[in-house]
Amino acid sequence: MARTFRLTLEFDGAGFEGWQIQPDGRRTVQGALEIAFARVARERVRAVGSSRTDAGVHAEGLVASVRLETELAPERLRRALNAALPDDVAVRELAVVRDDFDARRDATGKLYRYSLWNAPDRAPLRRRRSLCLLRPLDLVGMRAAAAQLVGTHDFASFQAAGSEVRSTVRVLRRLDVTGEPGSAVDLWFEGTGFLRHMVRNLAGTLIEVGSGRRDPEGMTALLAARDRRRAGPTAPAHALTLVCVSYGDSSC
Amino acid sequence: MARTFRLTLEFDGAGFEGWQIQPDGRRTVQGALEIAFARVARERVRAVGSSRTDAGVHAEGLVASVRLETELAPERLRRALNAALPDDVAVRELAVVRDDFDARRDATGKLYRYSLWNAPDRAPLRRRRSLCLLRPLDLVGMRAAAAQLVGTHDFASFQAAGSEVRSTVRVLRRLDVTGEPGSAVDLWFEGTGFLRHMVRNLAGTLIEVGSGRRDPEGMTALLAARDRRRAGPTAPAHALTLVCVSYGDSSC
Repeated sequence: MARTFRLTLEFDGAGFEGWQIQPDGRRTVQGALEIAFARVARERVRAVGSSRTDAGVHAEGLVASVRLETELAPERLRRALNAALPDDVAVRELAVVRDDFDARRDATGKLYRYSLWNAPDRAPLRRRRSLCLLRPLDLVGMRAAAAQLVGTHDFASFQAAGSEVRSTVRVLRRLDVTGEPGSAVDLWFEGTGFLRHMVRNLAGTLIEVGSGRRDPEGMTALLAARDRRRAGPTAPAHALTLVCVSYGDSSC
Repeated sequence: MARTFRLTLEFDGAGFEGWQIQPDGRRTVQGALEIAFARVARERVRAVGSSRTDAGVHAEGLVASVRLETELAPERLRRALNAALPDDVAVRELAVVRDDFDARRDATGKLYRYSLWNAPDRAPLRRRRSLCLLRPLDLVGMRAAAAQLVGTHDFASFQAAGSEVRSTVRVLRRLDVTGEPGSAVDLWFEGTGFLRHMVRNLAGTLIEVGSGRRDPEGMTALLAARDRRRAGPTAPAHALTLVCVSYGDSSC
């Protein structure tokens, strides 16, 4: 009898073209997971991911759901999957959930962290997962800008050009700027869901504010403009990590 | 007029065959640094390193000394070097020191960290700089073994086979096992100097103790044996980091 499983995945995004299977067969997390299921459970399955992460984006806790006929106990299945998966992705948790659980549709919150290394020097040991910005950032300005972005807004100005979605209104529950100039500075984005490239476009815009190249007070007008060309550049993927995804009443 | 400079370097060891220039021209930290000096100061120099780190070993603070004719101010020279160096190595500090300073000969202490990830699952985001050990380690046993190793001893049992040094006596000032099973466990080695592979051989031996494959009480006999074959295997290089080097009265 088929059961539905919920999996929490950690992966190093450097070697993946993002979560979703690509038509050209390039390496993806979903593809690696489905190959592991075929080897371990001898089943062809389709895994549903909470988030279609971009190429290069990391995850500490992306959630996937999958329907399986296997009779393996969850802990046994988890260990077998981890033995079968490549070394840049692992299943941290695996549980049997209600039959109709869907990791994408049922997600109620997602938390992303954008990691900056803001010091006069490059930090070679952080370069794979942080963006190095050598000049001191104006964190006060960044926080003022962030405060204008939190809430329920039309984020069309921050959506990747060419995207087609029914609504560009999203709820940004939290946008915190933590840390201090001279060391690690993290941008934390929590919301119910994000448009394509939205987190990276918000990060790129906040970096412009922090670098003195954009007025912190301009965020409300930028939201109102609904024009991608008015926002900052898309910040590089390698510094972005999907920290966790929440369901129902749970929170990250 | 030539001046002597002291440099503190951070590097990701994954792309280097260690510190020291190799006769076959493979990529080394010393080589990268000397190329950068040639570009920035237009001088052919020989950099002296505090430690001949193995291929794959990282550094948060390896110290190098170099004699230079350049009249560039130290901060300007440091920035120019960082602009010229590849992205996996950077100069964190650079200062003019007394003429006869020698980063290798004058070092009075070195601190290394060996990083373990000891949890039931692999951690893809830690795999580049930690050794994953899935079964819970016996940290009590490891600490008991470590206590026997601290002090002034003949560490011949922990020296790479085939090494030729005048004396194999070294002072291990500190060997701490920090952290908890189920997460990150770090081994900290502080001493005046280390034999070739000594830190990795000590780590490999302590891992055997922690895994229940070696008696924690056997360290004194192991030291007395002066036989490399009696100690544990050389732990992998990628989990080892040279944290800092001290001079004179300073400590790490």
